[in-house]
Amino acid sequence: MASATQHPNHQLISSEDVEGTNVFGAGDTKVGEIDHLMIDKFSGKVTYAVMSFGGFLGLGHSHYPVPWAALKYDPTLGGYRTGITEQQLHDAPEFSDDEWGDRNWETRTHQHYGVPMY
Amino acid sequence: MASATQHPNHQLISSEDVEGTNVFGAGDTKVGEIDHLMIDKFSGKVTYAVMSFGGFLGLGHSHYPVPWAALKYDPTLGGYRTGITEQQLHDAPEFSDDEWGDRNWETRTHQHYGVPMY
Repeated sequence: MASATQHPNHQLISSEDVEGTNVFGAGDTKVGEIDHLMIDKFSGKVTYAVMSFGGFLGLGHSHYPVPWAALKYDPTLGGYRTGITEQQLHDAPEFSDDEWGDRNWETRTHQHYGVPMY
Repeated sequence: MASATQHPNHQLISSEDVEGTNVFGAGDTKVGEIDHLMIDKFSGKVTYAVMSFGGFLGLGHSHYPVPWAALKYDPTLGGYRTGITEQQLHDAPEFSDDEWGDRNWETRTHQHYGVPMY
């Protein structure tokens, strides 16, 4: 699968290659992957990484939207680092696709992960 | 094909649904489609829309990277408006995938289309 490691020295990545990019937690342990991104149509800002954790954590849902501000790109790893914990994912505000239009859900989710709104 | 019109009232769009989003020129005429986006891995900013013009304009190449700043989302149309012309596309700085690491190409391209660097 294509990933951010394809062009490790490039600052830019194709939206097609984002899928499968690794996300690392404490101790450089892989905790999950980026499934896709959510992008603001107007500003062109990435707002959320929708992550999958299959096989890594015992999480009930298959996809979790994580605020972009909770991820930091690490060129050495060719992926993203995050400080979010399994407990935070478990306790995150309930999500369904309808929530993409819900500013209240967005505010609560950013507060939950302790990062500023985009 | 999925497109930005799937959730016309949502401000956010999935990176998976960006492909096929229409781009309109003067007089609300469709001139092309977004094939994929280029995203800054660090900042999470969309930097270019790589557009396809198959069948619309007599352009030699299949894909043209257009600076994000040259597109403006129009909720009424469910797509993007642009003021760029066929002549500008013809005369744009030469492009190959290597250019994604070339800051000089990026500067010339933004100057060519008359928009500020991201």
